[in-house]
Amino acid sequence: MIMDRLVREASESPVCVGLDTKPEYLPAAIAKMDRDEGDKLFLFNKKVIDATADLAACYKVQVACYEALGIEGMSAYARTLAYAREQGKLTIGDCKRGDIASTAEQYAKGHFEGDFEVDFLTVNAYMGYDAVSPYLPYVKDHDKGLFILTHTSNPSAKDLQEQKLEDGEQVFEKMADLVDEWGKDYIGEEGYSALGAVVGLTYPEAFADIQSRHPHTFFLVPGYGAQGGTGKDIADIFKRSRCAVINSSRGIICAHRGKTEGPDFVDYIRESAQTMKTDIMQWL
Amino acid sequence: MIMDRLVREASESPVCVGLDTKPEYLPAAIAKMDRDEGDKLFLFNKKVIDATADLAACYKVQVACYEALGIEGMSAYARTLAYAREQGKLTIGDCKRGDIASTAEQYAKGHFEGDFEVDFLTVNAYMGYDAVSPYLPYVKDHDKGLFILTHTSNPSAKDLQEQKLEDGEQVFEKMADLVDEWGKDYIGEEGYSALGAVVGLTYPEAFADIQSRHPHTFFLVPGYGAQGGTGKDIADIFKRSRCAVINSSRGIICAHRGKTEGPDFVDYIRESAQTMKTDIMQWL
Repeated sequence: MIMDRLVREASESPVCVGLDTKPEYLPAAIAKMDRDEGDKLFLFNKKVIDATADLAACYKVQVACYEALGIEGMSAYARTLAYAREQGKLTIGDCKRGDIASTAEQYAKGHFEGDFEVDFLTVNAYMGYDAVSPYLPYVKDHDKGLFILTHTSNPSAKDLQEQKLEDGEQVFEKMADLVDEWGKDYIGEEGYSALGAVVGLTYPEAFADIQSRHPHTFFLVPGYGAQGGTGKDIADIFKRSRCAVINSSRGIICAHRGKTEGPDFVDYIRESAQTMKTDIMQWL
Repeated sequence: MIMDRLVREASESPVCVGLDTKPEYLPAAIAKMDRDEGDKLFLFNKKVIDATADLAACYKVQVACYEALGIEGMSAYARTLAYAREQGKLTIGDCKRGDIASTAEQYAKGHFEGDFEVDFLTVNAYMGYDAVSPYLPYVKDHDKGLFILTHTSNPSAKDLQEQKLEDGEQVFEKMADLVDEWGKDYIGEEGYSALGAVVGLTYPEAFADIQSRHPHTFFLVPGYGAQGGTGKDIADIFKRSRCAVINSSRGIICAHRGKTEGPDFVDYIRESAQTMKTDIMQWL
Protein backbone atom coordinates (compact mmCIF):
# COMPACT_ATOMS: atom_id res chain seq x y z
CA MET A 1 0.00 0.00 0.00
CA ILE A 2 1.39 3.32 -1.11
CA MET A 3 0.91 5.10 2.21
CA ASP A 4 2.79 2.29 3.98
CA ARG A 5 5.67 2.92 1.63
CA LEU A 6 5.61 6.65 2.31
CA VAL A 7 5.45 6.08 6.07
CA ARG A 8 8.55 3.85 5.85
CA GLU A 9 10.42 6.30 3.66
CA ALA A 10 9.49 9.09 6.07
CA SER A 11 10.85 7.13 9.04
CA GLU A 12 14.31 7.27 7.34
CA SER A 13 13.94 10.92 6.40
CA PRO A 14 10.79 13.01 6.68
CA VAL A 15 12.02 15.42 4.01
CA CYS A 16 9.72 16.04 1.06
CA VAL A 17 11.54 18.05 -1.60
CA GLY A 18 9.19 20.52 -3.26
CA LEU A 19 9.88 21.06 -6.94
CA ASP A 20 8.10 24.42 -7.25
CA THR A 21 10.57 25.29 -9.95
CA LYS A 22 10.39 28.65 -11.69
CA PRO A 23 12.67 30.03 -14.42
CA GLU A 24 14.12 32.63 -12.04
CA TYR A 25 15.41 29.87 -9.76
CA LEU A 26 17.67 28.38 -12.40
CA PRO A 27 21.42 28.91 -12.09
CA ALA A 28 23.12 30.56 -15.06
CA ALA A 29 24.66 27.20 -15.96
CA ILE A 30 21.17 26.07 -16.98
CA ALA A 31 19.42 29.39 -17.67
CA LYS A 32 21.84 30.27 -20.47
CA MET A 33 21.31 27.00 -22.36
CA ASP A 34 19.78 27.30 -25.81
CA ARG A 35 16.67 25.30 -24.94
CA ASP A 36 13.04 26.07 -24.21
CA GLU A 37 12.05 27.03 -20.67
CA GLY A 38 10.36 23.68 -20.08
CA ASP A 39 13.49 21.76 -20.98
CA LYS A 40 15.48 23.90 -18.58
CA LEU A 41 13.06 23.33 -15.71
CA PHE A 42 13.26 19.60 -16.32
CA LEU A 43 17.07 19.59 -16.47
CA PHE A 44 17.21 21.50 -13.20
CA ASN A 45 14.71 19.16 -11.53
CA LYS A 46 16.67 16.13 -12.73
CA LYS A 47 19.82 17.51 -11.11
CA VAL A 48 17.90 18.23 -7.89
CA ILE A 49 16.50 14.69 -7.81
CA ASP A 50 19.93 13.16 -8.46
CA ALA A 51 21.46 15.28 -5.69
CA THR A 52 18.82 14.56 -3.06
CA ALA A 53 17.39 11.10 -3.81
CA ASP A 54 18.98 9.46 -0.74
CA LEU A 55 17.83 12.30 1.52
CA ALA A 56 14.21 12.62 0.43
CA ALA A 57 11.14 10.57 1.34
CA CYS A 58 9.40 11.89 -1.76
CA TYR A 59 9.11 14.74 -4.24
CA LYS A 60 6.17 17.10 -4.36
CA VAL A 61 5.86 18.72 -7.77
CA GLN A 62 3.87 21.98 -7.83
CA VAL A 63 1.94 21.84 -11.09
CA ALA A 64 1.16 25.60 -11.05
CA CYS A 65 4.80 26.37 -11.86
CA TYR A 66 4.56 24.22 -14.98
CA GLU A 67 1.07 25.34 -16.05
CA ALA A 68 2.52 28.87 -16.01
CA LEU A 69 4.66 27.91 -19.02
CA GLY A 70 1.84 26.32 -21.00
CA ILE A 71 2.39 23.17 -23.04
CA GLU A 72 6.18 23.17 -22.69
CA GLY A 73 5.79 23.55 -18.93
CA MET A 74 3.37 20.64 -18.75
CA SER A 75 5.85 18.57 -20.70
CA ALA A 76 8.50 19.43 -18.08
CA TYR A 77 6.02 18.44 -15.35
CA ALA A 78 5.44 15.05 -17.01
CA ARG A 79 9.15 14.42 -17.53
CA THR A 80 9.98 15.40 -13.96
CA LEU A 81 7.45 12.95 -12.55
CA ALA A 82 8.59 10.17 -14.87
CA TYR A 83 12.22 10.73 -13.92
CA ALA A 84 11.55 10.69 -10.17
CA ARG A 85 9.52 7.51 -10.52
CA GLU A 86 12.23 5.88 -12.65
CA GLN A 87 14.64 6.58 -9.78
CA GLY A 88 12.28 4.66 -7.49
CA LYS A 89 11.11 7.78 -5.68
CA LEU A 90 7.57 8.53 -4.53
CA THR A 91 5.85 11.50 -6.13
CA ILE A 92 3.14 13.88 -4.98
CA GLY A 93 1.36 15.93 -7.63
CA ASP A 94 0.57 19.17 -5.83
CA CYS A 95 -2.41 19.99 -7.99
CA LYS A 96 -5.07 20.71 -5.34
CA ARG A 97 -7.68 19.55 -7.81
CA GLY A 98 -11.24 19.96 -6.66
CA ASP A 99 -14.15 18.90 -8.79
CA ILE A 100 -16.88 16.29 -8.66
CA ALA A 101 -18.28 13.13 -10.14
CA SER A 102 -17.45 12.57 -13.81
CA THR A 103 -15.17 15.62 -13.84
CA ALA A 104 -13.11 14.38 -10.91
CA GLU A 105 -12.93 11.01 -12.68
CA GLN A 106 -11.16 12.85 -15.46
CA TYR A 107 -8.70 14.37 -12.99
CA ALA A 108 -8.15 10.92 -11.46
CA LYS A 109 -7.42 9.50 -14.89
CA GLY A 110 -5.17 12.43 -15.73
CA HIS A 111 -3.08 12.25 -12.58
CA PHE A 112 -3.08 8.55 -11.73
CA GLU A 113 -2.44 7.30 -15.29
CA GLY A 114 -0.63 8.52 -18.38
CA ASP A 115 1.70 11.48 -18.82
CA PHE A 116 1.04 13.09 -15.44
CA GLU A 117 1.01 9.92 -13.30
CA VAL A 118 1.86 10.44 -9.63
CA ASP A 119 1.64 8.28 -6.52
CA PHE A 120 -0.25 10.88 -4.50
CA LEU A 121 -2.42 13.80 -5.56
CA THR A 122 -3.35 16.79 -3.41
CA VAL A 123 -7.11 17.41 -3.49
CA ASN A 124 -9.40 20.25 -2.40
CA ALA A 125 -12.66 18.90 -0.95
CA TYR A 126 -14.64 22.13 -0.58
CA MET A 127 -17.22 20.35 -2.76
CA GLY A 128 -17.49 17.46 -0.27
CA TYR A 129 -17.31 13.71 -0.74
CA ASP A 130 -18.18 13.96 -4.45
CA ALA A 131 -14.76 15.64 -4.85
CA VAL A 132 -13.00 12.62 -3.30
CA SER A 133 -14.96 9.49 -4.21
CA PRO A 134 -13.93 9.41 -7.90
CA TYR A 135 -10.30 8.88 -6.84
CA LEU A 136 -11.09 5.91 -4.58
CA PRO A 137 -11.08 3.22 -7.29
CA TYR A 138 -7.46 4.23 -7.94
CA VAL A 139 -6.69 4.17 -4.21
CA LYS A 140 -8.16 0.70 -3.95
CA ASP A 141 -6.98 -0.95 -7.16
CA HIS A 142 -3.98 1.04 -8.37
CA ASP A 143 -2.18 1.75 -5.12
CA LYS A 144 -2.64 5.51 -5.19
CA GLY A 145 -3.11 7.99 -2.35
CA LEU A 146 -4.52 11.45 -1.68
CA PHE A 147 -3.64 14.39 0.51
CA ILE A 148 -6.71 16.51 1.20
CA LEU A 149 -6.37 20.20 2.11
CA THR A 150 -7.37 20.60 5.72
CA HIS A 151 -5.55 23.47 7.42
CA THR A 152 -3.21 25.21 5.05
CA SER A 153 -0.11 27.16 6.06
CA ASN A 154 -1.08 30.60 4.73
CA PRO A 155 -2.23 33.61 6.78
CA SER A 156 -5.70 33.80 5.22
CA ALA A 157 -6.39 30.14 6.01
CA LYS A 158 -8.44 31.73 8.77
CA ASP A 159 -10.91 33.35 6.32
CA LEU A 160 -12.82 30.11 5.94
CA GLN A 161 -10.95 27.24 7.59
CA GLU A 162 -10.99 28.81 11.06
CA GLN A 163 -14.63 29.85 11.00
CA LYS A 164 -16.40 28.31 13.95
CA LEU A 165 -19.36 26.01 13.32
CA GLU A 166 -22.41 25.98 15.56
CA ASP A 167 -21.28 22.73 17.20
CA GLY A 168 -18.06 24.44 18.33
CA GLU A 169 -15.80 22.83 15.72
CA GLN A 170 -13.91 24.95 13.27
CA VAL A 171 -14.26 24.33 9.53
CA PHE A 172 -10.80 22.73 9.29
CA GLU A 173 -11.70 20.33 12.12
CA LYS A 174 -14.81 19.32 10.23
CA MET A 175 -12.64 18.73 7.17
CA ALA A 176 -10.21 16.62 9.25
CA ASP A 177 -13.17 14.56 10.51
CA LEU A 178 -14.33 14.00 6.94
CA VAL A 179 -10.85 12.97 5.77
CA ASP A 180 -10.70 10.44 8.60
CA GLU A 181 -14.16 9.10 7.84
CA TRP A 182 -13.64 8.88 4.07
CA GLY A 183 -10.34 7.02 4.60
CA LYS A 184 -11.41 4.46 7.16
CA ASP A 185 -11.58 1.58 4.64
CA TYR A 186 -8.08 2.33 3.34
CA ILE A 187 -5.87 1.87 6.39
CA GLY A 188 -2.56 0.11 5.73
CA GLU A 189 -0.20 -2.05 7.80
CA GLU A 190 1.48 1.00 9.27
CA GLY A 191 -1.83 2.19 10.67
CA TYR A 192 -2.36 5.13 8.34
CA SER A 193 -5.10 5.66 5.80
CA ALA A 194 -4.31 6.22 2.11
CA LEU A 195 -6.21 9.49 2.44
CA GLY A 196 -3.84 11.90 4.15
CA ALA A 197 -4.28 15.55 5.05
CA VAL A 198 -2.42 18.74 4.24
CA VAL A 199 -1.90 20.62 7.50
CA GLY A 200 0.54 23.52 7.74
CA LEU A 201 3.34 23.77 10.28
CA THR A 202 2.47 27.41 10.86
CA TYR A 203 -0.54 26.65 13.07
CA PRO A 204 0.92 24.32 15.76
CA GLU A 205 -2.23 24.23 17.88
CA ALA A 206 -4.40 23.27 14.94
CA PHE A 207 -1.90 20.55 14.13
CA ALA A 208 -1.87 19.13 17.66
CA ASP A 209 -5.65 19.13 17.69
CA ILE A 210 -5.99 17.22 14.42
CA GLN A 211 -3.12 14.86 15.20
CA SER A 212 -4.59 13.82 18.55
CA ARG A 213 -8.07 13.28 17.16
CA HIS A 214 -7.04 11.44 14.01
CA PRO A 215 -4.32 8.84 14.67
CA HIS A 216 -4.90 7.16 11.29
CA THR A 217 -4.24 10.31 9.29
CA PHE A 218 -0.81 10.86 7.77
CA PHE A 219 0.14 14.45 7.01
CA LEU A 220 1.79 16.38 4.24
CA VAL A 221 3.14 19.42 6.03
CA PRO A 222 4.00 22.67 4.26
CA GLY A 223 5.41 25.69 6.04
CA TYR A 224 8.97 24.62 6.95
CA GLY A 225 11.81 27.02 6.24
CA ALA A 226 10.78 29.89 3.99
CA GLN A 227 7.30 29.98 5.59
CA GLY A 228 8.67 30.05 9.16
CA GLY A 229 8.28 26.53 10.55
CA THR A 230 11.32 25.06 12.38
CA GLY A 231 12.78 21.67 13.30
CA LYS A 232 11.60 22.26 16.85
CA ASP A 233 7.98 22.65 15.64
CA ILE A 234 8.31 19.32 13.86
CA ALA A 235 9.88 17.72 16.93
CA ASP A 236 6.77 18.65 18.91
CA ILE A 237 4.68 16.79 16.36
CA PHE A 238 6.98 13.78 16.14
CA LYS A 239 7.11 13.40 19.92
CA ARG A 240 3.46 12.50 19.67
CA SER A 241 3.74 10.38 16.49
CA ARG A 242 5.86 10.08 13.35
CA CYS A 243 2.87 10.94 11.25
CA ALA A 244 4.16 13.28 8.56
CA VAL A 245 6.40 14.24 5.68
CA ILE A 246 7.62 17.80 5.81
CA ASN A 247 7.86 19.76 2.60
CA SER A 248 10.45 22.35 1.78
CA SER A 249 10.50 23.94 -1.64
CA ARG A 250 12.38 27.24 -1.88
CA GLY A 251 14.53 26.32 1.15
CA ILE A 252 16.05 23.52 -0.93
CA ILE A 253 15.73 24.36 -4.61
CA CYS A 254 16.85 27.97 -4.12
CA ALA A 255 19.79 27.10 -1.81
CA HIS A 256 22.30 27.96 -4.53
CA ARG A 257 20.97 31.45 -5.17
CA GLY A 258 23.46 34.16 -4.35
CA LYS A 259 26.16 31.51 -3.85
CA THR A 260 26.91 30.10 -7.26
CA GLU A 261 25.67 30.39 -10.79
CA GLY A 262 27.87 27.49 -11.90
CA PRO A 263 27.35 23.75 -12.39
CA ASP A 264 28.18 23.04 -8.73
CA PHE A 265 24.81 24.55 -7.70
CA VAL A 266 23.65 21.06 -6.80
CA ASP A 267 26.13 20.95 -3.92
CA TYR A 268 24.23 23.76 -2.20
CA ILE A 269 20.94 22.03 -2.86
CA ARG A 270 22.16 18.72 -1.45
CA GLU A 271 23.59 20.51 1.57
CA SER A 272 20.30 22.26 2.30
CA ALA A 273 18.37 18.97 2.14
CA GLN A 274 20.94 17.38 4.46
CA THR A 275 20.69 20.33 6.86
CA MET A 276 16.91 20.08 6.91
CA LYS A 277 17.06 16.35 7.61
CA THR A 278 19.54 16.94 10.44
CA ASP A 279 17.47 19.84 11.79
CA ILE A 280 14.52 17.48 12.16
CA MET A 281 16.27 14.23 13.13
CA GLN A 282 18.39 15.80 15.90
CA TRP A 283 15.32 16.01 18.11
CA LEU A 284 14.30 12.40 17.72
CA MET B 1 -14.45 45.54 -18.34
CA ILE B 2 -14.77 41.85 -19.03
CA MET B 3 -17.73 41.26 -16.71
CA ASP B 4 -19.64 44.07 -18.44
CA ARG B 5 -19.09 42.26 -21.71
CA LEU B 6 -20.33 38.97 -20.25
CA VAL B 7 -23.38 40.67 -18.73
CA ARG B 8 -24.25 42.13 -22.13
CA GLU B 9 -23.70 38.83 -23.93
CA ALA B 10 -25.86 37.11 -21.33
CA SER B 11 -28.69 39.58 -21.85
CA GLU B 12 -28.90 38.33 -25.47
CA SER B 13 -28.58 34.69 -24.47
CA PRO B 14 -27.70 33.39 -21.02
CA VAL B 15 -26.43 30.10 -22.46
CA CYS B 16 -22.89 29.06 -21.51
CA VAL B 17 -21.83 26.06 -23.59
CA GLY B 18 -19.73 23.67 -21.51
CA LEU B 19 -16.98 21.96 -23.47
CA ASP B 20 -16.49 19.04 -21.07
CA THR B 21 -15.49 16.97 -24.07
CA LYS B 22 -14.51 13.33 -23.63
CA PRO B 23 -13.50 10.83 -26.32
CA GLU B 24 -16.70 8.82 -25.80
CA TYR B 25 -18.78 11.86 -26.77
CA LEU B 26 -17.32 12.07 -30.27
CA PRO B 27 -19.48 10.99 -33.21
CA ALA B 28 -18.01 8.26 -35.40
CA ALA B 29 -17.36 10.85 -38.12
CA ILE B 30 -14.62 12.26 -35.86
CA ALA B 31 -13.77 9.25 -33.65
CA LYS B 32 -12.68 7.17 -36.63
CA MET B 33 -10.22 9.77 -37.92
CA ASP B 34 -6.58 8.75 -37.96
CA ARG B 35 -5.49 11.45 -35.52
CA ASP B 36 -4.52 11.57 -31.87
CA GLU B 37 -7.28 11.89 -29.27
CA GLY B 38 -6.37 15.50 -28.54
CA ASP B 39 -6.74 16.48 -32.19
CA LYS B 40 -10.14 14.83 -32.27
CA LEU B 41 -11.37 16.65 -29.16
CA PHE B 42 -10.27 19.94 -30.70
CA LEU B 43 -11.95 19.21 -34.05
CA PHE B 44 -15.17 18.37 -32.25
CA ASN B 45 -14.99 21.51 -30.11
CA LYS B 46 -14.34 23.65 -33.17
CA LYS B 47 -17.49 22.25 -34.81
CA VAL B 48 -19.47 22.88 -31.62
CA ILE B 49 -18.25 26.47 -31.44
CA ASP B 50 -19.04 27.10 -35.11
CA ALA B 51 -22.53 25.64 -34.63
CA THR B 52 -23.42 27.59 -31.48
CA ALA B 53 -21.46 30.86 -31.59
CA ASP B 54 -24.55 33.03 -32.20
CA LEU B 55 -26.48 31.25 -29.42
CA ALA B 56 -23.86 31.26 -26.65
CA ALA B 57 -22.83 34.01 -24.26
CA CYS B 58 -19.58 32.18 -23.64
CA TYR B 59 -17.80 28.83 -23.59
CA LYS B 60 -16.71 27.09 -20.39
CA VAL B 61 -13.93 24.63 -21.06
CA GLN B 62 -13.53 21.92 -18.40
CA VAL B 63 -9.77 21.42 -18.13
CA ALA B 64 -10.11 18.05 -16.35
CA CYS B 65 -11.29 16.42 -19.57
CA TYR B 66 -8.10 17.57 -21.29
CA GLU B 67 -5.71 16.83 -18.41
CA ALA B 68 -7.07 13.28 -18.58
CA LEU B 69 -5.34 12.89 -21.95
CA GLY B 70 -1.99 14.28 -20.83
CA ILE B 71 0.05 16.54 -23.08
CA GLU B 72 -2.05 15.96 -26.18
CA GLY B 73 -5.15 16.78 -24.17
CA MET B 74 -3.64 20.02 -22.89
CA SER B 75 -2.76 20.94 -26.43
CA ALA B 76 -6.44 20.43 -27.37
CA TYR B 77 -7.43 22.60 -24.40
CA ALA B 78 -5.11 25.39 -25.60
CA ARG B 79 -6.32 25.17 -29.21
CA THR B 80 -9.98 25.16 -28.14
CA LEU B 81 -9.54 28.33 -26.12
CA ALA B 82 -7.59 30.04 -28.89
CA TYR B 83 -10.24 29.14 -31.45
CA ALA B 84 -13.13 30.41 -29.31
CA ARG B 85 -11.29 33.66 -28.67
CA GLU B 86 -10.45 34.05 -32.38
CA GLN B 87 -14.20 33.81 -33.04
CA GLY B 88 -14.68 36.72 -30.64
CA LYS B 89 -16.28 34.56 -27.96
CA LEU B 90 -15.71 34.84 -24.21
CA THR B 91 -14.04 31.88 -22.50
CA ILE B 92 -14.18 30.49 -18.99
CA GLY B 93 -11.41 28.09 -17.96
CA ASP B 94 -13.17 25.74 -15.58
CA CYS B 95 -10.04 24.87 -13.66
CA LYS B 96 -11.19 25.46 -10.07
CA ARG B 97 -7.62 26.30 -9.18
CA GLY B 98 -6.98 26.87 -5.51
CA ASP B 99 -3.57 27.78 -4.21
CA ILE B 100 -1.92 30.75 -2.59
CA ALA B 101 0.59 33.53 -2.94
CA SER B 102 3.47 32.81 -5.32
CA THR B 103 1.85 29.52 -6.40
CA ALA B 104 -1.43 31.19 -7.31
CA GLU B 105 0.62 33.80 -9.19
CA GLN B 106 1.84 30.92 -11.34
CA TYR B 107 -1.73 29.79 -11.97
CA ALA B 108 -2.69 33.38 -12.84
CA LYS B 109 0.19 33.57 -15.31
CA GLY B 110 -0.70 30.14 -16.71
CA HIS B 111 -4.38 30.88 -17.28
CA PHE B 112 -4.42 34.62 -18.01
CA GLU B 113 -1.44 34.60 -20.41
CA GLY B 114 0.14 32.22 -22.87
CA ASP B 115 -1.12 28.87 -24.18
CA PHE B 116 -4.03 28.50 -21.75
CA GLU B 117 -5.28 32.11 -21.77
CA VAL B 118 -8.94 32.56 -20.83
CA ASP B 119 -11.13 35.55 -20.01
CA PHE B 120 -12.44 34.06 -16.76
CA LEU B 121 -11.02 31.39 -14.48
CA THR B 122 -12.96 29.39 -11.90
CA VAL B 123 -11.22 29.46 -8.52
CA ASN B 124 -11.57 27.54 -5.25
CA ALA B 125 -11.03 29.83 -2.27
CA TYR B 126 -10.98 27.26 0.56
CA MET B 127 -7.56 28.76 1.36
CA GLY B 128 -9.06 32.24 1.76
CA TYR B 129 -8.06 35.60 0.29
CA ASP B 130 -4.49 34.41 -0.41
CA ALA B 131 -6.08 32.11 -3.02
CA VAL B 132 -7.72 35.08 -4.79
CA SER B 133 -5.43 38.11 -4.40
CA PRO B 134 -2.73 36.90 -6.85
CA TYR B 135 -5.27 37.05 -9.69
CA LEU B 136 -6.31 40.63 -8.95
CA PRO B 137 -3.50 42.36 -10.88
CA TYR B 138 -4.84 40.57 -13.96
CA VAL B 139 -8.40 41.58 -13.10
CA LYS B 140 -7.29 45.19 -12.75
CA ASP B 141 -4.79 45.59 -15.58
CA HIS B 142 -5.54 42.82 -18.08
CA ASP B 143 -9.35 42.80 -18.08
CA LYS B 144 -9.74 39.33 -16.60
CA GLY B 145 -12.40 37.91 -14.27
CA LEU B 146 -12.94 35.13 -11.76
CA PHE B 147 -15.78 32.87 -10.75
CA ILE B 148 -15.29 31.64 -7.19
CA LEU B 149 -16.90 28.39 -6.02
CA THR B 150 -19.61 29.27 -3.55
CA HIS B 151 -22.45 26.76 -3.55
CA THR B 152 -21.82 23.98 -6.03
CA SER B 153 -24.53 21.90 -7.70
CA ASN B 154 -23.53 18.45 -6.39
CA PRO B 155 -25.32 16.46 -3.65
CA SER B 156 -22.35 16.43 -1.25
CA ALA B 157 -22.04 20.23 -1.45
CA LYS B 158 -23.73 19.93 1.94
CA ASP B 159 -20.72 18.15 3.53
CA LEU B 160 -18.89 21.40 4.05
CA GLN B 161 -20.71 24.24 2.26
CA GLU B 162 -23.94 23.80 4.21
CA GLN B 163 -22.34 23.47 7.62
CA LYS B 164 -23.77 26.12 9.90
CA LEU B 165 -21.41 28.62 11.51
CA GLU B 166 -21.89 29.87 15.03
CA ASP B 167 -23.25 33.20 13.81
CA GLY B 168 -26.05 31.36 12.00
CA GLU B 169 -24.59 31.67 8.51
CA GLN B 170 -23.74 28.60 6.50
CA VAL B 171 -20.26 28.15 5.06
CA PHE B 172 -21.43 28.96 1.51
CA GLU B 173 -23.01 32.19 2.75
CA LYS B 174 -19.71 33.15 4.35
CA MET B 175 -18.00 32.41 1.03
CA ALA B 176 -20.57 34.55 -0.81
CA ASP B 177 -19.88 37.39 1.64
CA LEU B 178 -16.15 37.06 0.98
CA VAL B 179 -16.61 37.06 -2.80
CA ASP B 180 -18.65 40.24 -2.50
CA GLU B 181 -16.12 41.90 -0.22
CA TRP B 182 -13.08 40.90 -2.32
CA GLY B 183 -14.77 42.20 -5.47
CA LYS B 184 -16.01 45.55 -4.25
CA ASP B 185 -13.23 47.52 -6.01
CA TYR B 186 -13.92 45.82 -9.33
CA ILE B 187 -17.52 46.75 -10.11
CA GLY B 188 -18.20 47.63 -13.74
CA GLU B 189 -20.71 49.82 -15.56
CA GLU B 190 -23.34 47.09 -15.51
CA GLY B 191 -23.18 46.98 -11.72
CA TYR B 192 -21.45 43.64 -11.36
CA SER B 193 -18.05 42.88 -9.90
CA ALA B 194 -15.34 41.11 -11.94
CA LEU B 195 -15.33 38.49 -9.19
CA GLY B 196 -18.35 36.31 -9.82
CA ALA B 197 -19.58 33.24 -7.98
CA VAL B 198 -20.34 29.66 -8.97
CA VAL B 199 -23.73 28.78 -7.51
CA GLY B 200 -25.62 25.70 -8.64
CA LEU B 201 -29.17 25.70 -9.93
CA THR B 202 -29.93 22.63 -7.85
CA TYR B 203 -30.27 24.54 -4.58
CA PRO B 204 -32.84 27.27 -5.41
CA GLU B 205 -33.17 28.54 -1.85
CA ALA B 206 -29.42 28.96 -1.49
CA PHE B 207 -29.43 30.81 -4.79
CA ALA B 208 -32.23 33.18 -3.77
CA ASP B 209 -30.45 33.86 -0.50
CA ILE B 210 -27.14 34.76 -2.15
CA GLN B 211 -28.75 36.69 -4.98
CA SER B 212 -30.75 38.92 -2.65
CA ARG B 213 -27.80 39.64 -0.38
CA HIS B 214 -25.25 40.25 -3.12
CA PRO B 215 -26.64 42.40 -5.95
CA HIS B 216 -23.14 43.07 -7.35
CA THR B 217 -22.29 39.40 -7.82
CA PHE B 218 -22.72 37.82 -11.23
CA PHE B 219 -23.16 34.05 -11.28
CA LEU B 220 -21.92 31.12 -13.28
CA VAL B 221 -24.65 28.56 -12.80
CA PRO B 222 -24.13 24.83 -13.32
CA GLY B 223 -26.87 22.28 -12.90
CA TYR B 224 -29.15 22.91 -15.89
CA GLY B 225 -30.33 19.92 -17.92
CA ALA B 226 -28.44 16.72 -17.11
CA GLN B 227 -28.18 17.77 -13.44
CA GLY B 228 -31.89 18.50 -13.11
CA GLY B 229 -32.28 22.29 -13.25
CA THR B 230 -35.02 23.69 -15.54
CA GLY B 231 -35.89 26.86 -17.43
CA LYS B 232 -38.49 27.59 -14.75
CA ASP B 233 -35.79 27.51 -12.05
CA ILE B 234 -33.83 30.05 -14.06
CA ALA B 235 -36.93 32.17 -14.62
CA ASP B 236 -37.31 32.44 -10.84
CA ILE B 237 -33.79 33.81 -10.64
CA PHE B 238 -34.15 36.16 -13.62
CA LYS B 239 -37.40 37.61 -12.30
CA ARG B 240 -35.29 39.03 -9.49
CA SER B 241 -32.30 40.04 -11.69
CA ARG B 242 -30.57 39.02 -14.92
CA CYS B 243 -27.48 38.10 -12.94
CA ALA B 244 -26.21 34.88 -14.47
CA VAL B 245 -24.96 32.73 -17.30
CA ILE B 246 -26.31 29.20 -17.23
CA ASN B 247 -24.00 26.37 -18.18
CA SER B 248 -25.01 23.23 -19.99
CA SER B 249 -22.37 20.70 -20.98
CA ARG B 250 -23.67 17.21 -21.71
CA GLY B 251 -27.12 18.58 -22.57
CA ILE B 252 -25.55 20.32 -25.56
CA ILE B 253 -22.38 18.50 -26.57
CA CYS B 254 -23.99 15.05 -26.26
CA ALA B 255 -27.22 16.03 -28.08
CA HIS B 256 -26.24 13.97 -31.14
CA ARG B 257 -25.67 10.75 -29.22
CA GLY B 258 -28.05 7.98 -30.23
CA LYS B 259 -29.29 10.15 -33.12
CA THR B 260 -26.45 10.32 -35.60
CA GLU B 261 -22.86 9.23 -35.91
CA GLY B 262 -22.41 11.20 -39.12
CA PRO B 263 -21.09 14.67 -39.98
CA ASP B 264 -24.51 16.26 -39.37
CA PHE B 265 -24.06 15.76 -35.61
CA VAL B 266 -23.65 19.52 -35.26
CA ASP B 267 -27.29 20.02 -36.26
CA TYR B 268 -28.38 18.25 -33.06
CA ILE B 269 -25.93 20.27 -31.01
CA ARG B 270 -27.14 23.57 -32.46
CA GLU B 271 -30.74 22.52 -31.93
CA SER B 272 -30.11 21.69 -28.26
CA ALA B 273 -28.46 25.06 -27.65
CA GLN B 274 -31.39 26.78 -29.38
CA THR B 275 -33.87 24.77 -27.30
CA MET B 276 -32.07 25.71 -24.10
CA LYS B 277 -32.07 29.39 -25.04
CA THR B 278 -35.80 29.24 -25.82
CA ASP B 279 -36.50 27.28 -22.62
CA ILE B 280 -34.99 30.15 -20.64
CA MET B 281 -36.07 33.16 -22.72
CA GLN B 282 -39.75 32.14 -22.93
CA TRP B 283 -40.23 33.17 -19.30
CA LEU B 284 -38.77 36.63 -19.66
